[in-house]
Amino acid sequence: MSDAPLAVCLVSGGMDSAVTLAEARARGFQCVALVIDYGQRHRVELTAAERVAKAQGVADLRRVRVDLSAIGGSALTADLEVPKARSPESIGQGVPSTYVPARNTIFLAIALGWAEVLGARHLFLGANQVDYSGYPDCRPEFLRAFEALANKATAAGTEHGQRFHVEAPLLTMSKADIVRRAEQLNVDLGLTHTCYDPLVEGDRVLACGACDACLLRLKGFAEAGRTDPIPYQTRPA
Amino acid sequence: MSDAPLAVCLVSGGMDSAVTLAEARARGFQCVALVIDYGQRHRVELTAAERVAKAQGVADLRRVRVDLSAIGGSALTADLEVPKARSPESIGQGVPSTYVPARNTIFLAIALGWAEVLGARHLFLGANQVDYSGYPDCRPEFLRAFEALANKATAAGTEHGQRFHVEAPLLTMSKADIVRRAEQLNVDLGLTHTCYDPLVEGDRVLACGACDACLLRLKGFAEAGRTDPIPYQTRPA
Repeated sequence: MSDAPLAVCLVSGGMDSAVTLAEARARGFQCVALVIDYGQRHRVELTAAERVAKAQGVADLRRVRVDLSAIGGSALTADLEVPKARSPESIGQGVPSTYVPARNTIFLAIALGWAEVLGARHLFLGANQVDYSGYPDCRPEFLRAFEALANKATAAGTEHGQRFHVEAPLLTMSKADIVRRAEQLNVDLGLTHTCYDPLVEGDRVLACGACDACLLRLKGFAEAGRTDPIPYQTRPA
Repeated sequence: MSDAPLAVCLVSGGMDSAVTLAEARARGFQCVALVIDYGQRHRVELTAAERVAKAQGVADLRRVRVDLSAIGGSALTADLEVPKARSPESIGQGVPSTYVPARNTIFLAIALGWAEVLGARHLFLGANQVDYSGYPDCRPEFLRAFEALANKATAAGTEHGQRFHVEAPLLTMSKADIVRRAEQLNVDLGLTHTCYDPLVEGDRVLACGACDACLLRLKGFAEAGRTDPIPYQTRPA
């Protein structure tokens, strides 16, 4: 490994974490990628996550399984209906059914464990508060509270006086900003997967084009004046 | 379910969490038990945890798997040697190899997720800082930092102004105190499992009597003037 400082980057397979990983690399970090298999119904996300991480040449890649379906509570892990064809304006009002309770807390906790093993002090997360304002764990106060916790929770923080940093470089960017930033950083968004309810036919994955995640993604590409490279079942007019 | 407030209790199969669960019940909570399968080498712990929870009549019991062996770093999950036959005085000096990085952070994060699903606001943890002073995540500052995080991380905390409480009623008790408290609360310590390196013969589990965990347990029984009801391969004189 090089002398560059290490960063543990949570990679989900979506656009935000793909660009976050590229941001971490652009800032000079040597990145390792953590993919969390939390029992999500849209399993193709995991394949996308590993594809994205490998395409960016991460120094290490681990998949950790945590079976959040055992505690239920979200349309993404339990047998609840994924909301469809809502207006983009109604997305982000209140906490949606796709919210996974304490998801970012759990993901960052696992990332912190790996960071402590590796001696890494930086955690990168693709959190974004613009499009997902209904998710309490996508807010700056949450990220600062996690940093404070990390410094109390670890031998590095308590015995060696080192400080953990939780970075969410996309926190205040719009989806259009993220599409533009991906282009600047040479991130291939064609490798990413966003849809909550895709049609999978063998190796071919078609996004639904109607769930909240697809609508926000397509709106971002439209506002950036770009065409989304991934295939859809239907694209809204 | 009754009208009693709900508490999510982390149950590991050991003495401390068994008595913690009984404390939560004694304080009037309706308890649900969360057992975390984190890829520990000593799998009999999980059986013990479920036996302990059922014996205390919990309202619900879930086992969540989180594969911490994928990120390594501890003698409890990776292929490192478990320390044996150390003097009780040397135990708790520095961070031992059995420390699982960020373990309590990860466990509490999952408990928080389930608490949010259930509407519970109390989390109970068998953390103890007397015998395990080398574990940074068994300190009161850690527990307070986690409460602060929980209130930022959840819809309950941020939208509804509710407060989460992380309770570790055994935090400052000695192992002898815990043995005595178990007796007062009618907790059958014969159901618990503590050893890091047990000999398993069919249904019969023999504690090694030599690892840090066995030594502290036996010392606790000795100081309380009681005999440990579980079987050992050898008991130190």
